[in-house]
Amino acid sequence: MEYAPSPRTAPTRSRERVSYDRAAVHAVLDEAVVCHVGFVVDGRPVVLPQLHARVDETLYLHGSTGARALLAARDGGLDVCVTVTLVDGLVLARSAFHHSVNYRSVVVHGTAEVVTDPAEQTAALDALVHAVVPGRTAGTRAPDRRELAATTVLRLPLAEVSLKARSGPPNDDAEDLDGPHWAGVLPLSTVPGPPVPAPDLAAGIETPAHVTDWTR
Amino acid sequence: MEYAPSPRTAPTRSRERVSYDRAAVHAVLDEAVVCHVGFVVDGRPVVLPQLHARVDETLYLHGSTGARALLAARDGGLDVCVTVTLVDGLVLARSAFHHSVNYRSVVVHGTAEVVTDPAEQTAALDALVHAVVPGRTAGTRAPDRRELAATTVLRLPLAEVSLKARSGPPNDDAEDLDGPHWAGVLPLSTVPGPPVPAPDLAAGIETPAHVTDWTR
Repeated sequence: MEYAPSPRTAPTRSRERVSYDRAAVHAVLDEAVVCHVGFVVDGRPVVLPQLHARVDETLYLHGSTGARALLAARDGGLDVCVTVTLVDGLVLARSAFHHSVNYRSVVVHGTAEVVTDPAEQTAALDALVHAVVPGRTAGTRAPDRRELAATTVLRLPLAEVSLKARSGPPNDDAEDLDGPHWAGVLPLSTVPGPPVPAPDLAAGIETPAHVTDWTR
Repeated sequence: MEYAPSPRTAPTRSRERVSYDRAAVHAVLDEAVVCHVGFVVDGRPVVLPQLHARVDETLYLHGSTGARALLAARDGGLDVCVTVTLVDGLVLARSAFHHSVNYRSVVVHGTAEVVTDPAEQTAALDALVHAVVPGRTAGTRAPDRRELAATTVLRLPLAEVSLKARSGPPNDDAEDLDGPHWAGVLPLSTVPGPPVPAPDLAAGIETPAHVTDWTR
């Protein structure tokens, strides 16, 4: 199952690095902790980090969008470009020119709208907590009515979507292969350190498995 | 030494999380492997991941900006917003509402221009390789004239810049402190795995220290 290419998501070059595969797109969105949301204010670009959660073919966004962006989203929707990037490794070629990065990057274009239905908002906030720490939703106090009213969640349909990725070893020129320089890939990953309990954590509360077993 | 706030970098809320300290901004820019560059095409936002390198108070950008953006940058400069985000930890509060992320995020507004001076371009490409892998510049074949001509580097002055950050434990409401839920921070970091030599690496070339000792 693939997303349909659009003029904005069709590749202008490096065609072999672009994919519209839904499962591959979902995997990137689900693995990343943060996304970067771009929007236009007074004709100029603004890019802010946000938390996101995917529910089927909808992306929910939550964070400090800034008052102007939220007002715009309330007033008929906000044109956004949401980009999620995972860096999988550093590609070290013999030549400086062929240095690169192994990465997976999803770009979503569309109109973000404020979620106003209370049931959808509650489900979206559950999904946002779950997206950051799977299993956490059941290990926390659910939001009350006052907290829901103070929280803004944006909804963005996954319709105009593409994935760009690079993987594998460096692509050096043939004439550099016998040179003196090391070449290869340095893999990178995001790992958790030991959990740090809150200083005011009540005695007798053990660190739950959804914290000790967290992985990406 | 601080950057001067502007209407675009002055906080509209969470004022205590915003800083203009140059050393703190530099540390974030230097630690991050990728940035996200936002620009406007036909009135709509586009956000793409890029590599960056800081040289004093200039940020150099390199990557697949897409033909349209590069053309715009050639023709008098391109309005961009460059955002760099480091996720330091997941903040797990007793309440879903107070869940958060410990992060450091730098936002740079300005006009990016194509570097045309050959000496500046060479220095910028050296800085880009060094930014990804310190010490690598001397361990690789330098670009030749043909490669320099095929490479576009953008220059962005660090003038309109702000840093937003959160650190420390969760901020739960007093009435939740005696609840049954674990609270604390799960620190995250980016770590290298074992280097993977290129399949066609010549015999006898050892993995250099700038690869085995890479850290962030």
